[in-house]
Amino acid sequence: MIKLFDTTLRDGTQGEGIAFSANDKLKVCEKLDELGIHYIEGGWPGSNPKDVEFFKNAKALSLSTSKICAFGSTRRAKLKAEDDPNLKAIIDVDTEVASIFGKSWDFHVIEALKIPLEKNLEMIYDSIVFLKEHGIEVIYDAEHFFDGYKRNKEYALSTIKEADKAGADCISLCDTNGGSLPFEIGSIITEIKSDIKSKIGIHAHNDSECAVANSLEAVKKGAVHVQGTINGYGERCGNANLCSIIPGLKIKMKLDCISDEQLSKLKNVSAYIAELGNISPEMHQPYVGASAFAHKGGIHVSAIQRHPDTYEHIKPELVGNRTRVIVSELSGRSNIIFKAKEYGVDLESADSKLDFILEKIKKLENEGYQFEGAEASFELLMKKALGTYKKFFDLEGFRVVIDKRGDMDSRSEATIKLRVNDKEFHTAAEGNGPVNALDKALRKALIGAYPEIKNFNLTDYKVRVLEGEEGTGSVVRVLIRTHGYNKMWDTVGVSENIITASWYALVDSVEYGLSKFVDVNK
Amino acid sequence: MIKLFDTTLRDGTQGEGIAFSANDKLKVCEKLDELGIHYIEGGWPGSNPKDVEFFKNAKALSLSTSKICAFGSTRRAKLKAEDDPNLKAIIDVDTEVASIFGKSWDFHVIEALKIPLEKNLEMIYDSIVFLKEHGIEVIYDAEHFFDGYKRNKEYALSTIKEADKAGADCISLCDTNGGSLPFEIGSIITEIKSDIKSKIGIHAHNDSECAVANSLEAVKKGAVHVQGTINGYGERCGNANLCSIIPGLKIKMKLDCISDEQLSKLKNVSAYIAELGNISPEMHQPYVGASAFAHKGGIHVSAIQRHPDTYEHIKPELVGNRTRVIVSELSGRSNIIFKAKEYGVDLESADSKLDFILEKIKKLENEGYQFEGAEASFELLMKKALGTYKKFFDLEGFRVVIDKRGDMDSRSEATIKLRVNDKEFHTAAEGNGPVNALDKALRKALIGAYPEIKNFNLTDYKVRVLEGEEGTGSVVRVLIRTHGYNKMWDTVGVSENIITASWYALVDSVEYGLSKFVDVNK
Repeated sequence: MIKLFDTTLRDGTQGEGIAFSANDKLKVCEKLDELGIHYIEGGWPGSNPKDVEFFKNAKALSLSTSKICAFGSTRRAKLKAEDDPNLKAIIDVDTEVASIFGKSWDFHVIEALKIPLEKNLEMIYDSIVFLKEHGIEVIYDAEHFFDGYKRNKEYALSTIKEADKAGADCISLCDTNGGSLPFEIGSIITEIKSDIKSKIGIHAHNDSECAVANSLEAVKKGAVHVQGTINGYGERCGNANLCSIIPGLKIKMKLDCISDEQLSKLKNVSAYIAELGNISPEMHQPYVGASAFAHKGGIHVSAIQRHPDTYEHIKPELVGNRTRVIVSELSGRSNIIFKAKEYGVDLESADSKLDFILEKIKKLENEGYQFEGAEASFELLMKKALGTYKKFFDLEGFRVVIDKRGDMDSRSEATIKLRVNDKEFHTAAEGNGPVNALDKALRKALIGAYPEIKNFNLTDYKVRVLEGEEGTGSVVRVLIRTHGYNKMWDTVGVSENIITASWYALVDSVEYGLSKFVDVNK
Repeated sequence: MIKLFDTTLRDGTQGEGIAFSANDKLKVCEKLDELGIHYIEGGWPGSNPKDVEFFKNAKALSLSTSKICAFGSTRRAKLKAEDDPNLKAIIDVDTEVASIFGKSWDFHVIEALKIPLEKNLEMIYDSIVFLKEHGIEVIYDAEHFFDGYKRNKEYALSTIKEADKAGADCISLCDTNGGSLPFEIGSIITEIKSDIKSKIGIHAHNDSECAVANSLEAVKKGAVHVQGTINGYGERCGNANLCSIIPGLKIKMKLDCISDEQLSKLKNVSAYIAELGNISPEMHQPYVGASAFAHKGGIHVSAIQRHPDTYEHIKPELVGNRTRVIVSELSGRSNIIFKAKEYGVDLESADSKLDFILEKIKKLENEGYQFEGAEASFELLMKKALGTYKKFFDLEGFRVVIDKRGDMDSRSEATIKLRVNDKEFHTAAEGNGPVNALDKALRKALIGAYPEIKNFNLTDYKVRVLEGEEGTGSVVRVLIRTHGYNKMWDTVGVSENIITASWYALVDSVEYGLSKFVDVNK
């Protein structure tokens, strides 16, 4: 059984742009428990007073698998362990488990701590013994172990032997600077393994883009405890990504760590924690990303329709993900048919409508459309081509005015005139920008006939200027993301005029939402 | 010497959300050549007519290191090699090098190609011999080699032996589904190496988050040719990331591949190609990301100030990156002097203007400004703060109207009122979009006083929406590039309103040009 140790809340929050509120930290714990993570490192009570609060609140959680762990360092050189405020803070927060780090690299002992090498060994020993005497399970983090070992093998080894002698339950070897490569990690663990009685763990960082490989290699060579963070959050290039390590261990290496049912929650856990951290999910993230099982090339698409394992390394369902087909200029008939099926539209490859749709897509793509990130627009396009789309309104016209006087803020006003079932609506609205003004005026015009629209919210707006060499005369592609009724959809618009492009994407957003959520028979 | 093979333009563009214009593809080639990449795979002429155009245009490039390579597949089962349109297309585009892929996994031969296993061997042999007879350097891509080898060792081996016998210059072993782990890659290459006379290459995908490690491991075990993409762009979870592989090979494994000077351009190449693809650079990307050497934790910060290698695995300058400290209050003054120097403005640390500039920059950066891609705006800001900037005009106001009736094209009109030396100019212009209309009206208003303006041309216009989760209410950053008098300058504007943001960038563009090219003493 490989034990999983999550440090999203401690090392993860050292990353640039990453922070969780006190309440969110508790939610993260509950989610990690659902996933079956064995240890959750919650913070450093001796260094950060806010973390003390977390440990207090975490006591009230009822977790079924996860143990909460407090982090700290070995005692200071001049204090006894029992007098060290940082070790006392660990005792005070009263967790079942503690992880404490100490120095393995002689350079750090001499240059950073400025103490004799021997003194550092005593600090390691005393600190572990002190915590063990208080009945705490101790994970010893050997900071910079691999860098230290590469420079001074004997000293690095002596530090972990000291931890072993002191009774550490696990010795976690840290590639703190993230610079090691898998074959280095593998051979070093092989060399030291027989000298250590405690369990061996691995704590990797991603500075060489090898953190996942380094962790798996360490396990291959005997480590039984793996530290990392959800989505690889962490300082600099991040920590080892548990979302890739867990399926690597379980599916690829066939090692026991969490249950199949827990594994199937992986994508959900990844998205949930990204959401709490207010971090956009990484589309291309292995296993759990939206693109992880997305196919674009025609050859691949026709092959996976018959046999998914021709171009998928695992069944996406195992980690809660799914196969997707991307419609693009590279796609052929098979992509369109597959895509149509996703929307419940059955197209035979002999269908005469298919050529029409393909032609239409090619024409639009030449104009600069791209349906990859705009599946809702694609669905509307298919339905319109097949004659199964019902119109909700007809536009008569719009006007947008942007006005700026001297140093005052600019003002944006939009007016819209449209008809719903021959009834005319003419509205005006102001916004903090022209698209926002248009959006508001459109909603005003439609809300009487379609009150559902109040549940739609624009949540993302992207602009891309195509053929950048032609200046402001270029074509502009706008992508809009909308949320409503717990769903999310993406639409696209293209025009030489950025406002018109935004308008097209906005209209698709509303039309798609209405087509899904308005009961046309009522 | 390890040969680097870039497939950003072929396999990279299979990635979701990734596409380059015809012109951008040529720029990518020039940039890869600067970096010292040995092979550039440009596209699949036999499958995509647009790619034929690329190869024609690429002939006009004068590259010093990179060879352009055409991609294709082995011949069809029912055709002779000389009659196969896909192989003929490779001959037609007339590149020095070709890469062709064939099947190594028996399952694919039987299930996807639906031909006897023996037939596939003939196709591999014939296709390579045909290209070699035309004097082309041939890289054979053994698709799904590792997956095939794991299931049917003998057959997979027989396919590459066939390629070897046919005279392939390099046999590139592909982990097409990206599911392999480093120790698998390593042991398989060790097993087959003595059976192959050709050079061995590696082509890895990132589905297990091990693509970089797999590539380095392959080299460790004897591969001398590495395929990948800039920033790891590619289908699903991406291809192996050359931006991490190159420093891994050169700095960590001490292997020859590109020069030190070329390596120092790595961050620039990564950012440039992201920019062309309109893809947000990944902050936490190893080696080249903005956060790759950014330190947040207090202990780390004080340590790296004395000894950078305490928490940095390499010197960031080696790859053109730099150390950043994420502590705004502490490092302010020295930071801004450093930054001003980067933009050619000399500030003494005792300068009383320094605090003012510092405050101003902090405020603007908080609003979403970024001066890295807009040095002209930064220079203007410095000069305005130092009181060395002379005003050319005062804006009284502008108004932009965008109008759309029914299905007709929209119309954009701008009016501008401004003063030059107390003389008022009030102009109007139409454009194909609101920014174009504004640009024209501004030129009309200024051309009488400053005829130099007719030599300024907007050549690029880029829009990025910041804080994407807040919909159209987000902040918009606009970058404008201007050419004039054989110079080029970049300016930036930020606002909630896309038109206002464009206006700020436009005004900076004109003011900068006037400040450089108008003789104020005449």
